[in-house]
Amino acid sequence: MNKALKKSIEASKGKDGKKATIIIHSGDFDKIMSAFIVGNGYLSMGVSVTLFFTFWGLTALKKVGFQRAPLSRMNILGIGRTMIRKRMRKYNVASLDELADSFKKLGGTVIACTMTMELMGIRNEDLREDLVDEYGTVGKYCFESKDADITLFI
Amino acid sequence: MNKALKKSIEASKGKDGKKATIIIHSGDFDKIMSAFIVGNGYLSMGVSVTLFFTFWGLTALKKVGFQRAPLSRMNILGIGRTMIRKRMRKYNVASLDELADSFKKLGGTVIACTMTMELMGIRNEDLREDLVDEYGTVGKYCFESKDADITLFI
Amino acid sequence: MNKALKKSIEASKGKDGKKATIIIHSGDFDKIMSAFIVGNGYLSMGVSVTLFFTFWGLTALKKVGFQRAPLSRMNILGIGRTMIRKRMRKYNVASLDELADSFKKLGGTVIACTMTMELMGIRNEDLREDLVDEYGTVGKYCFESKDADITLFI
Repeated sequence: MNKALKKSIEASKGKDGKKATIIIHSGDFDKIMSAFIVGNGYLSMGVSVTLFFTFWGLTALKKVGFQRAPLSRMNILGIGRTMIRKRMRKYNVASLDELADSFKKLGGTVIACTMTMELMGIRNEDLREDLVDEYGTVGKYCFESKDADITLFI
Repeated sequence: MNKALKKSIEASKGKDGKKATIIIHSGDFDKIMSAFIVGNGYLSMGVSVTLFFTFWGLTALKKVGFQRAPLSRMNILGIGRTMIRKRMRKYNVASLDELADSFKKLGGTVIACTMTMELMGIRNEDLREDLVDEYGTVGKYCFESKDADITLFI
Repeated sequence: MNKALKKSIEASKGKDGKKATIIIHSGDFDKIMSAFIVGNGYLSMGVSVTLFFTFWGLTALKKVGFQRAPLSRMNILGIGRTMIRKRMRKYNVASLDELADSFKKLGGTVIACTMTMELMGIRNEDLREDLVDEYGTVGKYCFESKDADITLFI
């Protein structure tokens, strides 16, 4: 690997050099919440974070989809989406919008999977463009995660 | 990072310094089995393991829920929960209870997500307290996993 | 760890010494696609990749199951399995068969979980033997992933 490339990878890491990359394949409301909560946790500790949204995860990034994502287990154990949102407000748990906003403010990176966009007929303007930093292929994800210290698939 | 902190992190690692952290978000019986099977595998190799139970994963840690967790694909391919349990006995595959017991005996750590507890109205006494080592936030998970060598999200 | 063992681990790594291991627990068509796409991405960058097929993931490796795996979200957002396949052809996205073939040609390794085979009554000849390199226990997976740089659970 040449020096310039190595340097640019180092520069993309957090304060103490740690880096996390998370693939978000699932479009479930609770899993996307988990992704942003964990992402924000790492960012607050100086770990750099890149989220790669693909398949159903990407459809949840659609303007119309962000608040409409289903739970991975709907209405089981007596707790549905409305219930979860109500309790989130009651216990001051940040909403998905707030979590995503924090993620961006803390310096997190969001990549939208271009293959999924083609496959599902999603255009740039269909997505929450305020959240997306880059549109990239799986090659982009692999390049980013190759030197990551923490890798998750959600 | 100060020396004392660094030392305590090193101390929390396994014999050859390797460490695994696993987030268990899913509450599916087969996925929780996978988590404990993989966890026990690492522990037997001297890798330290921390399981962080959150969302539906945490509800499966409830006294009433541990044996009632559904399969991620119920009744597909002609194999349901009863069938899997029957075959598990037949082929001497450890039950979820046995797997969890082994995990504790091998020195594994279980953290229960406090945010999920608030969100879903779960109290300490609702959980399998014999399994839980700590009650912690996502910050606790991030701190633990920051220096992990193996990270999984189940 | 003795030198010979260390050497054999090093030898099993990719050109620049990076290694990825992926557990495929899910049998969903789109998740298996993701696994192979990501796997092929890493292989093309010189990262060695081992896929460990277990539970529903393994059933998808069955001769009869490979093309019949369901979507993790069927018929949601107006896009079903047929639709995805049609769009895959239209946009030149490789089929699951093509992805798996590339994976093997690029030097990727496929391990079939023997515990799952016993549990679900699957024999060697039921599986896509052209794809499987080894039949192994979770111990095999743990050994492989202990020194991996990238670990995912799908």
